[in-house]
Amino acid sequence: MRKILIIGIGAGNPDYMTIQAIKALNRADVFFIPDKGTEKVALRQLREEICDRFIEQPGYRTVGFKVPDRDGGGPNYRGGVEEWRGKLADAYESLFAEHLAEDQCGAFLVWGDPSLYDSTLRILETIRDRGFAFDYEVIPGISAVQALTARHRVALNRIGEPILVTTGRRIAGGLPDGLDNVVVMLDGETAFRQIDGADIDIYWGAYLGTPDEILVSGRLSEVADEIERVRREARTEKGWIMDTYLLRRTRED
Amino acid sequence: MRKILIIGIGAGNPDYMTIQAIKALNRADVFFIPDKGTEKVALRQLREEICDRFIEQPGYRTVGFKVPDRDGGGPNYRGGVEEWRGKLADAYESLFAEHLAEDQCGAFLVWGDPSLYDSTLRILETIRDRGFAFDYEVIPGISAVQALTARHRVALNRIGEPILVTTGRRIAGGLPDGLDNVVVMLDGETAFRQIDGADIDIYWGAYLGTPDEILVSGRLSEVADEIERVRREARTEKGWIMDTYLLRRTRED
Repeated sequence: MRKILIIGIGAGNPDYMTIQAIKALNRADVFFIPDKGTEKVALRQLREEICDRFIEQPGYRTVGFKVPDRDGGGPNYRGGVEEWRGKLADAYESLFAEHLAEDQCGAFLVWGDPSLYDSTLRILETIRDRGFAFDYEVIPGISAVQALTARHRVALNRIGEPILVTTGRRIAGGLPDGLDNVVVMLDGETAFRQIDGADIDIYWGAYLGTPDEILVSGRLSEVADEIERVRREARTEKGWIMDTYLLRRTRED
Repeated sequence: MRKILIIGIGAGNPDYMTIQAIKALNRADVFFIPDKGTEKVALRQLREEICDRFIEQPGYRTVGFKVPDRDGGGPNYRGGVEEWRGKLADAYESLFAEHLAEDQCGAFLVWGDPSLYDSTLRILETIRDRGFAFDYEVIPGISAVQALTARHRVALNRIGEPILVTTGRRIAGGLPDGLDNVVVMLDGETAFRQIDGADIDIYWGAYLGTPDEILVSGRLSEVADEIERVRREARTEKGWIMDTYLLRRTRED
């Protein structure tokens, strides 16, 4: 039976690769590489560096494919994403049928960890639900959240406290009651600006794990301007940005 | 200046070790190994396996130390933990002064990831706040949460949904409103039993990453009995258990 490996390759730093991920790289006959059009040159180079460094047998096969455009915002966000995922499932199914013999092994390389805000797993499930048979395996990777906390040398929470991982659009109204540790991912803009930052600390990071990594931390009300400036300048200079942050309510007692 | 490395060694499987963690192991002059009294033989063996396999220079130095008892439950949970942490800070400070020369590097090995429900970072900060000078570095590792989702081959959330990471004691009353994906860690018992499981799926795992790993998943109302039985039997057989689970509200539409 065909086998697909979904390999978490960590957040930026090739040294975040696990032994398990390296072994998985070396099991694959074919790598399926999405061309997102917007894919950042820097990220592509990092991915190629990972493959060159860790794959022992030269001449491995890669198959690029075009990722269909996605309707980003819109009132029906979930519906738009599901339609997009259906198109991707079509694309993946064709790829497997065309490029993978019955006994071969294909791989997807996922930045960070495949369980966190990544669609690959769900797309594969969609294809299997349609009746196209293959086996698959998931290899975890160091996520941007972990890179962020490690580089800031902070824990995600204080003793026994819960942690919320969410998106920029959901925290615009402020941190939810009773949740004092909030990790924000996929914030296309600067949702933290819409929060009263007098009693909140922020640990912010961009291009985590890469040589261009930027870290800023402090009381949100005091560093929000600086983060916005640094973020804008970096984005202008490189043409893209990926950032993540942890917000933590200061303790009241 | 003295240097301390806090090394995330992943959740059980030695193949979860990252290249960065392996390099860190090889930088350390001394490993500080807590003796928790209750430390499971299986975990100690796994740790030794990791050291034997990845440290290139033989004869590395390890220094064991007794971890003071902690007042587990009690009405003042946070206060109890803070007092315990103070005692640990005393112990660590003595260790550094006694076993680490000014230019040497010590290391703590942390199961999973150092940012998630682990006290080491905060204890080191406590020592620095007291004026004992040293530098430190954090190396992220594959957490039990990631091992859980990878082995169940599920994402932590559906499209755009937030994720809550919390403890057993906090979900006894049910999943919070609006949070459909809840990871439960540090559940000493079976808090999931106190939740109406008709509309919730559970992905449960014990001894994750190890050869003894157990996985059970399904509608909570249908598998809760089985998980409780499997958990009880395994715990009786081994004398200890470590488990984690993801609860997900089924979609209403």
